Amino acid sequence: MPHGHHLDDELQQAAASFFERIPFNQLLGIEIDSMSAQQVVMHLPMKPELIGNFVHGILHGGVISSLLDVCGGAMALIGAFANHQHLPAAERMSKLSKLGTIDLRIDYLRPGRGQRFIATATPLRTGNKVTVIRMELHNDEDVLVAVGTGTYLCG
Amino acid sequence: MPHGHHLDDELQQAAASFFERIPFNQLLGIEIDSMSAQQVVMHLPMKPELIGNFVHGILHGGVISSLLDVCGGAMALIGAFANHQHLPAAERMSKLSKLGTIDLRIDYLRPGRGQRFIATATPLRTGNKVTVIRMELHNDEDVLVAVGTGTYLCG
Amino acid sequence: MPHGHHLDDELQQAAASFFERIPFNQLLGIEIDSMSAQQVVMHLPMKPELIGNFVHGILHGGVISSLLDVCGGAMALIGAFANHQHLPAAERMSKLSKLGTIDLRIDYLRPGRGQRFIATATPLRTGNKVTVIRMELHNDEDVLVAVGTGTYLCG
Amino acid sequence: MPHGHHLDDELQQAAASFFERIPFNQLLGIEIDSMSAQQVVMHLPMKPELIGNFVHGILHGGVISSLLDVCGGAMALIGAFANHQHLPAAERMSKLSKLGTIDLRIDYLRPGRGQRFIATATPLRTGNKVTVIRMELHNDEDVLVAVGTGTYLCG
Repeated sequence: MPHGHHLDDELQQAAASFFERIPFNQLLGIEIDSMSAQQVVMHLPMKPELIGNFVHGILHGGVISSLLDVCGGAMALIGAFANHQHLPAAERMSKLSKLGTIDLRIDYLRPGRGQRFIATATPLRTGNKVTVIRMELHNDEDVLVAVGTGTYLCG
Repeated sequence: MPHGHHLDDELQQAAASFFERIPFNQLLGIEIDSMSAQQVVMHLPMKPELIGNFVHGILHGGVISSLLDVCGGAMALIGAFANHQHLPAAERMSKLSKLGTIDLRIDYLRPGRGQRFIATATPLRTGNKVTVIRMELHNDEDVLVAVGTGTYLCG
Repeated sequence: MPHGHHLDDELQQAAASFFERIPFNQLLGIEIDSMSAQQVVMHLPMKPELIGNFVHGILHGGVISSLLDVCGGAMALIGAFANHQHLPAAERMSKLSKLGTIDLRIDYLRPGRGQRFIATATPLRTGNKVTVIRMELHNDEDVLVAVGTGTYLCG
Repeated sequence: MPHGHHLDDELQQAAASFFERIPFNQLLGIEIDSMSAQQVVMHLPMKPELIGNFVHGILHGGVISSLLDVCGGAMALIGAFANHQHLPAAERMSKLSKLGTIDLRIDYLRPGRGQRFIATATPLRTGNKVTVIRMELHNDEDVLVAVGTGTYLCG
């Protein structure tokens, strides 16, 4: 029985498998670490085809923006779920298909060096229509590589 | 002999091959259509692994932000080249390795439906240190799918 | 009788007087030039107390962001009006009190020199919930001083 | 004698009086609380002419963006100072005249209700050319009203 700001296991499972089935998320290799109503954490192992802008061995800026957008989108979705815990799971899951990014700002702070990149997302504003999420990307030495803010339409 | 705001063929060739060699650009399938000091145009053919957020057949938001960032970055670079036509080609090319995105805003306006997506970039502000570029993404029916603004560090 | 994408005079009058009554808009001296479903134009005469950042005679960046936000907000509102022309004027006017800026990006391109600054706003995406507007600021010599993009909640 | 990441009193005094002399900052009523290389804090007392968008008693969005931009700009400047502590004070002060906002994103999270608004700014990225600053605005009940990110050109 869901309560407070916890996500029941079944819901978390469903959301995770939903995200992991998205083709481009698979192409990148995004993996979900944890999801709660307060934070979503995902990570991405480095691989040669993700190398990017102008210097060998550095993560492409597009991978950074993609990962932060996906992580923010998941957080927006989970936030919307938490607001609607009284609804049946099927109905809540149907909201998955309506979520969308309205806009995104990414600040590229330091070169994306490392073997593993960890994205975290936390809510800044949750609403019935619009949710604003803040995201951060760290490398495996805990260097802050990039931050972002996304505005999402949720249902 | 370069003059006015034209790019000599050799330079355009060099810049194009530079962008096309970047691993993640290859993974996405980005192709360069034209480059001048006023505009850069690139396109991306749709393919199944670029499918994204939550509805089958729609381009992933991360692909959109990646393509717009790459197109804006190329425009920033070309703009910097045009400002430095008196320098030898080798020296100008060395600037390629220093270019970087500082920040990026993407507005996702309409679902990315289509078989081919065309990105255009034009300069808003060019400077010795910082360049601001505006980008647009249209699908093959000329629907405006997304717009973006990027701030780039250039040399 | 309102039709198509025209705003009837009465409505335009009401919206204009609404904006001009806002205390901070009066403090700045914002004046409305024209409003249609395709574009809103406002202007601001320079005055000493609007001088800003670090060089005498240059418009303060906060004045620029304020004027662009107000102009974008008016455009969002007018766009929402145009979508609801079947509603009685009173009901449409009541939407004025619900409009709000969700987020705003401003790019400061050139110093704000001049005696008069003209803001224009045009819609990028109009929706029942969320509207995205693009704004530009020119000085009285038609120099592009700043651009912006705003996301607005509309009813 | 300046050392580490402290600002000597003289420098802090000079920077504070510089900001407080700017005409538009005076019009708004911005006051500086503290400045260090890690954080700048400013506040703004509410007054009737700062009332804004569409509901009586709420701070105008333009005031919010102005205050956050000013606070971020001060942080960018102080960060640049801290990087150049070996330079004579006069030379460091001359950098004041070159600082400028490149771009700004503001997220308006909750209505600006209250009698006093407190802005804080902290650095995300400091560099010789470009600095990225994060800003927050709270009201006098510690409600987070808005957040922002600014990119600044520094010298």
